[in-house]
Amino acid sequence: MQNQFDAAVAAITPVDRSLAATAQAHLDNLTKPQGSLGRLEELALQMYLIQEGAPAADPMRIYTVAGDHGVNDEGVSIFPQEVTRQMILNFLNNGAGINVLAKTAGAQLYVVDAGSCGGGYDEHPNLIQEKIAPGTANLAKGPAMTREQCLKALLLGISLADRAHDDGVKVLGTGDMGISNTTPSTALYSAYLGLAPEAITGPGTGLDKGGVVNKADVIRKGLAANKDAVESGDPVEILAALGGLEIATLAGLILGGAKNRQLVSVDGFISTAAYTAASRICPAVKDYCIISHASAEPGHAAAVHSLGMKPYLDLGFRLGEGTGAACAMYLVRSAADMYNNMATFADAGVDEATS
Amino acid sequence: MQNQFDAAVAAITPVDRSLAATAQAHLDNLTKPQGSLGRLEELALQMYLIQEGAPAADPMRIYTVAGDHGVNDEGVSIFPQEVTRQMILNFLNNGAGINVLAKTAGAQLYVVDAGSCGGGYDEHPNLIQEKIAPGTANLAKGPAMTREQCLKALLLGISLADRAHDDGVKVLGTGDMGISNTTPSTALYSAYLGLAPEAITGPGTGLDKGGVVNKADVIRKGLAANKDAVESGDPVEILAALGGLEIATLAGLILGGAKNRQLVSVDGFISTAAYTAASRICPAVKDYCIISHASAEPGHAAAVHSLGMKPYLDLGFRLGEGTGAACAMYLVRSAADMYNNMATFADAGVDEATS
Repeated sequence: MQNQFDAAVAAITPVDRSLAATAQAHLDNLTKPQGSLGRLEELALQMYLIQEGAPAADPMRIYTVAGDHGVNDEGVSIFPQEVTRQMILNFLNNGAGINVLAKTAGAQLYVVDAGSCGGGYDEHPNLIQEKIAPGTANLAKGPAMTREQCLKALLLGISLADRAHDDGVKVLGTGDMGISNTTPSTALYSAYLGLAPEAITGPGTGLDKGGVVNKADVIRKGLAANKDAVESGDPVEILAALGGLEIATLAGLILGGAKNRQLVSVDGFISTAAYTAASRICPAVKDYCIISHASAEPGHAAAVHSLGMKPYLDLGFRLGEGTGAACAMYLVRSAADMYNNMATFADAGVDEATS
Repeated sequence: MQNQFDAAVAAITPVDRSLAATAQAHLDNLTKPQGSLGRLEELALQMYLIQEGAPAADPMRIYTVAGDHGVNDEGVSIFPQEVTRQMILNFLNNGAGINVLAKTAGAQLYVVDAGSCGGGYDEHPNLIQEKIAPGTANLAKGPAMTREQCLKALLLGISLADRAHDDGVKVLGTGDMGISNTTPSTALYSAYLGLAPEAITGPGTGLDKGGVVNKADVIRKGLAANKDAVESGDPVEILAALGGLEIATLAGLILGGAKNRQLVSVDGFISTAAYTAASRICPAVKDYCIISHASAEPGHAAAVHSLGMKPYLDLGFRLGEGTGAACAMYLVRSAADMYNNMATFADAGVDEATS
């Protein structure tokens, strides 16, 4: 399993920046002042480098990956753990935020059970059942996952990217569902980025002040209980100790997307933690990812800054599920359309700037 | 003409905020933590108040209104004035940024010649030819428009909103084309909002430092040359003195949209100047408008702040044409879909938060 994973990671290469000049020249020749479409031009350029040619945005696919968390025992969420399962059913009935926003964005949506509590689900064409375990262990007391479970989740994520690639998918979106999963995500930011838990722990779905203090305390305990893993510097070991089954799967999805030269629209607080793990495993994933939006969860800004990334949207979202990733996918399509369908100055007979 | 205009303005009423509780209760009952879709919820609420019921986003229509500017003589743009006409032709050939982005957003696009230099254009199903004058006079030396021209443009804008309303359009987008039109826009911000020209004058399509200094100087001259209008406190008089034919038409479009209870997605630097004029003529237009995006033109942030508004997007756009309005229209559709198509906690059998 480790070998299979290592081989996939080894297949990821940075983009070839020598191609940027060609793409930039095309962008500068379109009928607009140079650079006047700002980050849409940046996005078109990134896609050009990924695809090594004129960007194609469609088809797009979001995977919303679910998992439960042993650390829920520590009172870190205002929602009961059963909600993970209930929300999976809501996804399958098209009732959740991600169902609506993926449809509006024109993205396919698949739901993945990587580790929800309880048994399986009735079959459904948009459900992928690959439960690795019915929830993780309590990270406040020791490793959330074994290394084997973590590798399984990473490989699951890679297989999701591969499946999408087989279906021609050009752009992937990451989404999460898992009651209590801001806690492992915050722990991962602390471990990978050296950010103090108190500085980046927030209310998640709606903890009060006391709840946030308790949550930061739980994360401190988790870092202490997993001291060896944290200090190992091994990103997979850290992910196993402090992450979650959906988070590790999403890290795998990001790695797989990069391997397949797919652009990955990374959702909010939880998905960015998965991105952090993926980028520690293989820094080249940065070339293939965008941070779709700035989460309202307070620690996100510090994490994103520390990662050297800049979110595309800032709409106060803190829902997860892939909702921010979906909204940014619309920008991705806009960028590709702009690159491909605008006229050049010469074609349109428009005079260029005189200075 | 004045009477016709006054009657239209008098027909604008603020939204009835007593309806907000019903819409908010619905939003809070959807299967997500309360408020977790941030500004999308804010947008859905605004649409509910405008439409007095569940929001409908489609059909959407952008009007890209063109006009030329006598102040172009003062060397305030790096593009020759002919580009206004060339870009109108580019719009009609589907080659410009707004063509691509309106299509991606699923919005209709009409081009309006309110005041480009030169004669008419061949007929085209998406072109509305209502040229009021072939460009304005040089505002650095006196009024850009007569009051009559300005009222004609305002009424043209109202008629565009009415025409869209007759066609069932729910959401309007504003767009502009006019070489040198950041100069009148900046002058309008100075006059309406009391902002110093030096503080808010920027490069427009790409002036260098010296060019920006000259442009601020031209604006100062314009404010002095139109001192009586500026000091009159009459927003129409100020618009006539310092605005442009496309800007006044867009101010009318915004007023007409508010009258017709249409949401208006206001584009960037030029359109926000039109919004400023409209909101000075009738403050209730605020209830019907969103500032679609933060323009990269430096003065926009101060103007928007002074207006008490908050842009939805910040993508470094400085193209105009309605490109930012188009991108925000996608968020408008997402907000309406969210409001209408998400399941409630009760419907989905999902437990609510315990605190």
